[in-house]
Amino acid sequence: MPVTLDDLVQRLRDFAAARDWEQFHTPKNLVMALSGEVGELTALFQWLTPEESARALEDPALSAEVHDELADVTLYLLRLADVLGVDLLTAAAAKIDRNEQRFPAG
Amino acid sequence: MPVTLDDLVQRLRDFAAARDWEQFHTPKNLVMALSGEVGELTALFQWLTPEESARALEDPALSAEVHDELADVTLYLLRLADVLGVDLLTAAAAKIDRNEQRFPAG
Amino acid sequence: MPVTLDDLVQRLRDFAAARDWEQFHTPKNLVMALSGEVGELTALFQWLTPEESARALEDPALSAEVHDELADVTLYLLRLADVLGVDLLTAAAAKIDRNEQRFPAG
Amino acid sequence: MPVTLDDLVQRLRDFAAARDWEQFHTPKNLVMALSGEVGELTALFQWLTPEESARALEDPALSAEVHDELADVTLYLLRLADVLGVDLLTAAAAKIDRNEQRFPAG
Repeated sequence: MPVTLDDLVQRLRDFAAARDWEQFHTPKNLVMALSGEVGELTALFQWLTPEESARALEDPALSAEVHDELADVTLYLLRLADVLGVDLLTAAAAKIDRNEQRFPAG
Repeated sequence: MPVTLDDLVQRLRDFAAARDWEQFHTPKNLVMALSGEVGELTALFQWLTPEESARALEDPALSAEVHDELADVTLYLLRLADVLGVDLLTAAAAKIDRNEQRFPAG
Repeated sequence: MPVTLDDLVQRLRDFAAARDWEQFHTPKNLVMALSGEVGELTALFQWLTPEESARALEDPALSAEVHDELADVTLYLLRLADVLGVDLLTAAAAKIDRNEQRFPAG
Repeated sequence: MPVTLDDLVQRLRDFAAARDWEQFHTPKNLVMALSGEVGELTALFQWLTPEESARALEDPALSAEVHDELADVTLYLLRLADVLGVDLLTAAAAKIDRNEQRFPAG
């Protein structure tokens, strides 16, 4: 069965509860954790040209690191939204709606 | 019908194509855009105590800003993963598996 | 007379004290403020090619924004180091020493 | 003799030239490097309470890491400003002037 967002959110809840880490998962702390992971992702691309960045997954070692950092960013984003009580998909869809108004095509 | 991740990814593809913005959407540039949006999200929480951060959605103006920035972060993360060809949900589930090995519970 | 680092640090102390903002200037909060400003700086460069980024100061409007964001980053970095009690210049010189050992030239 | 900002800037120029790394030091790349280092600094503080963050230098291991990351942030900020041709101290002093207008004291 394919993984769903809801699965991930529930696994993150269980993971934090089982380790008594909920006390650390304030929105402020989670924003910092998200930011730190985006910093690690940024470091993977900092010396690449834009063209090289488009081929990043052709290098197996770099590809593994990119997958790992994208996973960390995703997990902290999901956990942050869950703790805040924000529905990410609905918020994101509403933002595309606004962007379509703000930047008319053609 | 509920919004799905696949819907959002497709809308972002169409949005970029309709505006001829695909040329700007290299992984390097999108990592920077993601990082910039996380910076805006961070700024919303920087002067709040951890306790205040947990109540951020009780303030309607701040809640709207948090939703907006979380949406921007989500959209750039989805677009970056799509351009790279990374399946975020699978990568994230694999990372939880590794974290469960790395940090045994109890 | 030229501006010195010590002048800036003292002005930032006076600025915070005069506004009763010292209570907000914990290292944790200042790291977030620094990170937010670096995010704004990043946003100025995100869609530029590396070549365009090298000519950023040729555009007067962009140049003003770059100066402004670099100033904000500098000010929060100085304030953070001051609050922590870190001598930035000494720490930076020691790091160049280590980098020279770690990455031998030629 | 005390270290000066100008010393550090010159050492960074020599360091890059001796390793043929000037080709990588575009403003775009250096902004990403700065952002990555701020991400590492952020990670050191992410799970600390504000009160704990104020005592970060009391822990020798954490203090060493904080010094190291603050040094990295300083070095990339100085290198970025040098490559762009921005006088950081002048820009920072001008920004304090503007902030004093924008946020009157008392």
